[in-house]
Amino acid sequence: MEKVGILGPRGTHSEEAALRLNEILASNRELVICAEIFEVLAAVEAGELDAGFVPVENSLEGSINITLDTLARSDSLVIAREFIWTVHNQLAVKAGIKLGDVKKIFSHSQPLSQCRKFLLKNFPHAELVSTTSTSRAAEIVAESKISDGYAAICTKRAGQLNNLETLANEIQDNSANRTRFFEVRRRPNEKFPTIKGDKILIICQIDGSRAGSLCEVLKEFAFRHVNMTRIESRPARTELGEYIFFFDLENNVDRRTLNDAIGGVKKKSIWLKDLGTFPVINA
Amino acid sequence: MEKVGILGPRGTHSEEAALRLNEILASNRELVICAEIFEVLAAVEAGELDAGFVPVENSLEGSINITLDTLARSDSLVIAREFIWTVHNQLAVKAGIKLGDVKKIFSHSQPLSQCRKFLLKNFPHAELVSTTSTSRAAEIVAESKISDGYAAICTKRAGQLNNLETLANEIQDNSANRTRFFEVRRRPNEKFPTIKGDKILIICQIDGSRAGSLCEVLKEFAFRHVNMTRIESRPARTELGEYIFFFDLENNVDRRTLNDAIGGVKKKSIWLKDLGTFPVINA
Repeated sequence: MEKVGILGPRGTHSEEAALRLNEILASNRELVICAEIFEVLAAVEAGELDAGFVPVENSLEGSINITLDTLARSDSLVIAREFIWTVHNQLAVKAGIKLGDVKKIFSHSQPLSQCRKFLLKNFPHAELVSTTSTSRAAEIVAESKISDGYAAICTKRAGQLNNLETLANEIQDNSANRTRFFEVRRRPNEKFPTIKGDKILIICQIDGSRAGSLCEVLKEFAFRHVNMTRIESRPARTELGEYIFFFDLENNVDRRTLNDAIGGVKKKSIWLKDLGTFPVINA
Repeated sequence: MEKVGILGPRGTHSEEAALRLNEILASNRELVICAEIFEVLAAVEAGELDAGFVPVENSLEGSINITLDTLARSDSLVIAREFIWTVHNQLAVKAGIKLGDVKKIFSHSQPLSQCRKFLLKNFPHAELVSTTSTSRAAEIVAESKISDGYAAICTKRAGQLNNLETLANEIQDNSANRTRFFEVRRRPNEKFPTIKGDKILIICQIDGSRAGSLCEVLKEFAFRHVNMTRIESRPARTELGEYIFFFDLENNVDRRTLNDAIGGVKKKSIWLKDLGTFPVINA
């Protein structure tokens, strides 16, 4: 059975998304909880895990920098799959607590701010408390007395793990809260045949980030009609003002044209890494 | 006397940089400590402060997202100055403690990792403890007993504020640790005349982030020889895959050419904000 590393603790959005991907793939891969994203990726590089399942971008919060920085610095990792997950938040309580009983609401600061309208409308007088994770919030509620009137904003999974009941579902203000995950593996990436419609991630350092040189690089994609769905920059960590660029490309042209485009970019870069071609799964 | 908001607590790199800028400007502007970057900028918008002095980018850690996101969403803020600050770390102790006495070293996790080589070489057996800020680390050392053998990695300023002595200076592994700060004010920005060599920050949302459309925008700068020193993207917070772009431009051409370029980009954008023209000061 394959071992897939994920960011812990149990019951967070990472575990919920990884379980859903297992369902979609009809696979019972074992999920191994790690304390840090960096640990997940290091264990894959070291061969201790078959794959790592790590967040790379959220539609509200932006890039997960540690994932990008680690991918840029590794020579042995490729992306096997992208999984796009819609984040669902619920309000969970101990059995017997009703809406009117809630006095104190626990969650990570991000869900607390992302559910602000729901909280203001339904719990204008409740105290809001930040926790280190949504799973921790669910644990605190599980350990409380009914008379405390505690509730947690957490995943369905964290509610189940802590024997909590759902008071309200889908309580986030904005339905656009989606997180992209990468399933990362060691090279080679032979298990996953390239098909049209897949995506490609290219990482490179361009000499100077001037409009001229970046435009020259983008032209390699543009005049061959390669769609770029995202550009991101991260510090090169050498000098202020020097950057590494991440280009997400669609595999919407034939492979030879794509290879020509990547070859053209490589000529204009100090270095370039091709993180592989991978399918995208939405859920 | 002008009031300038900065991120607290006292003694952190933000305060040290703001004090140095005051020196360079031969100004005794009052520095007002705020708990969050967001608070600094909100107080400037509300007219409670004359200016805000906030970090925008670090050469090792990358963008300060809250600064970028707040600037993108404000209609009343402009950038009056950019200040580039080289981060200096020292090892500080209570008077009387020598190198060989140090058993436990406190600091924020970033300086702890940025001084790793120095720590491994000189204190292979010392315990490293993460704190919420470098100022807090200095306070903990100030409150300790000499027999505890505590030391803090902090600014010179935090050492002075807590009556600590310097055991070692410039202990970071990498000299490229530089932070960019913006001095932000309310529009209009008339106090600061535009001069050649200044910089300009443009924020815009482009319809689709495809190579083609981004390249079209960059061409507006490139064929007019406007230097772009940085491009950054942040989520538009509408849908995954929609972005706001930040372009740092050099004011290296005549004003009319620059205005033509910005006008050209505006035509190709859903919206565009010009955050003003500002001088850059290095320290």
